Amino acid sequence: MAIKTPYLTVDGIIKIFDEKDRFRGIVLIERKNEPLGLALPGGFVDVGERVEDALKREMKEETSLEVEIIKLLGVYSDPRRDPRFHTASCVFVCRATGEPVGMDDAKEAKIYALEEIPFERLVFDHAEILHDFIEGM
Amino acid sequence: MAIKTPYLTVDGIIKIFDEKDRFRGIVLIERKNEPLGLALPGGFVDVGERVEDALKREMKEETSLEVEIIKLLGVYSDPRRDPRFHTASCVFVCRATGEPVGMDDAKEAKIYALEEIPFERLVFDHAEILHDFIEGM
Repeated sequence: MAIKTPYLTVDGIIKIFDEKDRFRGIVLIERKNEPLGLALPGGFVDVGERVEDALKREMKEETSLEVEIIKLLGVYSDPRRDPRFHTASCVFVCRATGEPVGMDDAKEAKIYALEEIPFERLVFDHAEILHDFIEGM
Repeated sequence: MAIKTPYLTVDGIIKIFDEKDRFRGIVLIERKNEPLGLALPGGFVDVGERVEDALKREMKEETSLEVEIIKLLGVYSDPRRDPRFHTASCVFVCRATGEPVGMDDAKEAKIYALEEIPFERLVFDHAEILHDFIEGM
């Protein structure tokens, strides 16, 4: 039997806190590859890897941050969410301190205060995800 | 680029209510295929299908019930959770009325009051999932 299911991915909403534990904003990356634009950091889950471990690995690879998971926000699986193929993403809210540094698929990684998020520049369904996150805060 | 990710599945904790909206119990199926034993109804997500639609389709196929989704309980992705290959399961809590009838991969589908669940007969990580569900009730 040849089983085919959507590709499994993870994305992280990283809440950055300063040394006095004040919330500064969340991290968005400028993508190096198509589709170009701003995005939440994230990537594919490897076979043999738990989604929580994939999340921590991808956050480290793309933003250089060590994150602590707060909760699962949801699973986003609309077949049209990625123009390349069908992906289903486990989106986690997590926290970190320090400054992000863009690496790997991220040309740049920057902190955005919630009121400064340029929603119109977000790719995939990341604007919808961030609206859900802000509504649930 | 050949992308390989875990197989994506869904499982449902179906809460059954009677005609007076009293909670009767949850549905477990007797599996027809290996691994044999009791399990939550569930199955693979198809490419092109949202996880919520896969959940409703699988519940219908295996228990004949039309379910309404209440919430996502979590994503279970331990690589050892399925002895056959690596699966990641989106587990939903849902509700339905009526009597389940086992079909497809389910030899039988029955309602179990929470205090009657035979945890030792559950396959995969379904005992862990049901403990998480009961703790969060």
